[in-house]
Amino acid sequence: MSSIHPILWKKGSLFLLDQRKLPFREEYLQVRSASEVFRAIRRMVVRGAPAIGVCAAFGLALQARRYRGRPENLPGVLRHWQQRLLQARPTAINLRNALCFMEGSLQALRKHSGRAGGVRKIARGLERAALQYFHRDLEANRALSRKGARRLQRLYGGRRLRILTLCNTGALATSGVGTAWGVIQELFRRTGRVEVYACETRPWLQGSRLTAWEAKKSGVPLTLIADGAAGFLLRQGQVDVVIVGADRITRGGDVANKIGTYALSVLARAHRIPFYVAAPSTTLDPAMGSGMKIPIEERSSRELTSIRGLSIAPVGTRAYNPVFDVTPASLVTGYMTEKGVFRSSQLAARFFPAGARPLRGSSQPHRSRDF
Amino acid sequence: MSSIHPILWKKGSLFLLDQRKLPFREEYLQVRSASEVFRAIRRMVVRGAPAIGVCAAFGLALQARRYRGRPENLPGVLRHWQQRLLQARPTAINLRNALCFMEGSLQALRKHSGRAGGVRKIARGLERAALQYFHRDLEANRALSRKGARRLQRLYGGRRLRILTLCNTGALATSGVGTAWGVIQELFRRTGRVEVYACETRPWLQGSRLTAWEAKKSGVPLTLIADGAAGFLLRQGQVDVVIVGADRITRGGDVANKIGTYALSVLARAHRIPFYVAAPSTTLDPAMGSGMKIPIEERSSRELTSIRGLSIAPVGTRAYNPVFDVTPASLVTGYMTEKGVFRSSQLAARFFPAGARPLRGSSQPHRSRDF
Repeated sequence: MSSIHPILWKKGSLFLLDQRKLPFREEYLQVRSASEVFRAIRRMVVRGAPAIGVCAAFGLALQARRYRGRPENLPGVLRHWQQRLLQARPTAINLRNALCFMEGSLQALRKHSGRAGGVRKIARGLERAALQYFHRDLEANRALSRKGARRLQRLYGGRRLRILTLCNTGALATSGVGTAWGVIQELFRRTGRVEVYACETRPWLQGSRLTAWEAKKSGVPLTLIADGAAGFLLRQGQVDVVIVGADRITRGGDVANKIGTYALSVLARAHRIPFYVAAPSTTLDPAMGSGMKIPIEERSSRELTSIRGLSIAPVGTRAYNPVFDVTPASLVTGYMTEKGVFRSSQLAARFFPAGARPLRGSSQPHRSRDF
Repeated sequence: MSSIHPILWKKGSLFLLDQRKLPFREEYLQVRSASEVFRAIRRMVVRGAPAIGVCAAFGLALQARRYRGRPENLPGVLRHWQQRLLQARPTAINLRNALCFMEGSLQALRKHSGRAGGVRKIARGLERAALQYFHRDLEANRALSRKGARRLQRLYGGRRLRILTLCNTGALATSGVGTAWGVIQELFRRTGRVEVYACETRPWLQGSRLTAWEAKKSGVPLTLIADGAAGFLLRQGQVDVVIVGADRITRGGDVANKIGTYALSVLARAHRIPFYVAAPSTTLDPAMGSGMKIPIEERSSRELTSIRGLSIAPVGTRAYNPVFDVTPASLVTGYMTEKGVFRSSQLAARFFPAGARPLRGSSQPHRSRDF
């Protein structure tokens, strides 16, 4: 479906399509260690909740691969990097879910290879686990794109659908298909009758730089708007549905996502326009009841006072730059996941049945135990 | 109150502080004719509804001053330029109101100086009229700033007020004091307990470039935010009141203003935060009942796809760039004007009493009669 490969794993090396340089240059950056993965996430070489989860998984595999110390010290080293990687992006839960998945794999590997385990055996096992996590994400995105598109087709029949979206939720934000953008692209593939309004998404311009680039690659008709113009479009009746991605979805269905999402959800409700969130189940946080407790990452004020290195405000101007916000479940029409499209009241039963562990086998919320 | 002089009239010449170059360079551009005023408005050398009204008035005075033809042809020439200037910015009504004021003055001048009138006499008369219009705007801004600030003081007592605003509504947007920013500045002068969150205001960045510059000059504490972050701030309880300016206010109180205003009004209502509009009565359009009929200017997509000449989207990306939107009267808490602070239901009675002409003597809505 998509010819964009944001994350490549080649012969034990990780290559990331450098998103800071898009849409102007398509350059891959080789990443050699967990520490380099951490930096790549912090510096926005890679962004998008599912994508950074995948990268964190590869980060641990890389670290195990380059480990040259005593076998019994490897778990401690990996635990250190797990903690460090978790701090790279506090809002997205996929990071934690991916690291928990890796933790589960490590435990299974150690059980089979004795207390110390062979370092190379563990490294190869963690590489397999990271690749498995990568492919699961790809599959989850494909499934949620199909299911989301089918829901929209059923709701709107054959008519042309005008969709408003925010940020980048395409291949670049994931292992290679996309969440909200995956749904949009799949709908376009099926009906050919899709028109997208993309918020440019200040300050980092994921809409203008990344989503517009993906639209050009896939042929989906896209029109860029200023973030402030979304309300006007809705009031003019120019939008049929809003679809966004997510960085974390709580048990009750509150959604942390790119700053500006909350405003769109309020505006959509005021205009009685459906508001959908598309995300794989790795974005769910079963441990969190209310969205008010989700930590919101604040980034440098320079992202607001300059663009591409060029100053756009007087020297010394103060800026406040929270890069995520939280949309309450009550404003979300439905959640498009790989298991189907659900209402908030259905989430807990579908994804967190009583007593069951939230993500098969290995991805319960992180606790600081022996890694 | 403000040491910023965006519009200077010196010995028959008009000088405009070039707002395209702020905050980096403070340069005045000499404007010599109505045609150059037209270009200055189109190219955003000067912007802000009251300011462009004042400039249009000076434009006609400049055109009369440079006129060298037969006296009886002067009215036709001025009529031509009146029509042309009206097209410079379709949304702001101040342009029309200023030109109507000048029309009234011309008629009075011609009555006193015979059918043809002396060209120099008329030119000097129009210069006086434009200066009068300029000073009236200044006075109106001073009065509305005092009245608006007094209202906020009464409502909130001595406590620190956290104000959210959009675009630039300061000295730069007017003849020299400001509307919403005038109120904020006056409140700061009185209490010293004001904190402003300013939306950066894409695409033209009036917030980052102009409001931040004015705040720095006057010492008002200002924090810049992305336009999409306003909803988050309101939800976090970080805002006590929203104040914006206006480009046109209809008889019923609908408000055309910078794109993004409507979204702020919906968000303010959703959070039960008062939403005020500050504008002189020259922003009122008695001829228009509903805001839905206000023409909305659409500007070049390049304002979205590049910043300061630097491309920020893939080549060929389509963008839709409406630069104003309309907020319905039902979402406006009050209108801060030079006559006082009113509710929408009071506007008609205060400003358009039955049978009376809307702006004293000379500024009924433009009809194309002998100019």
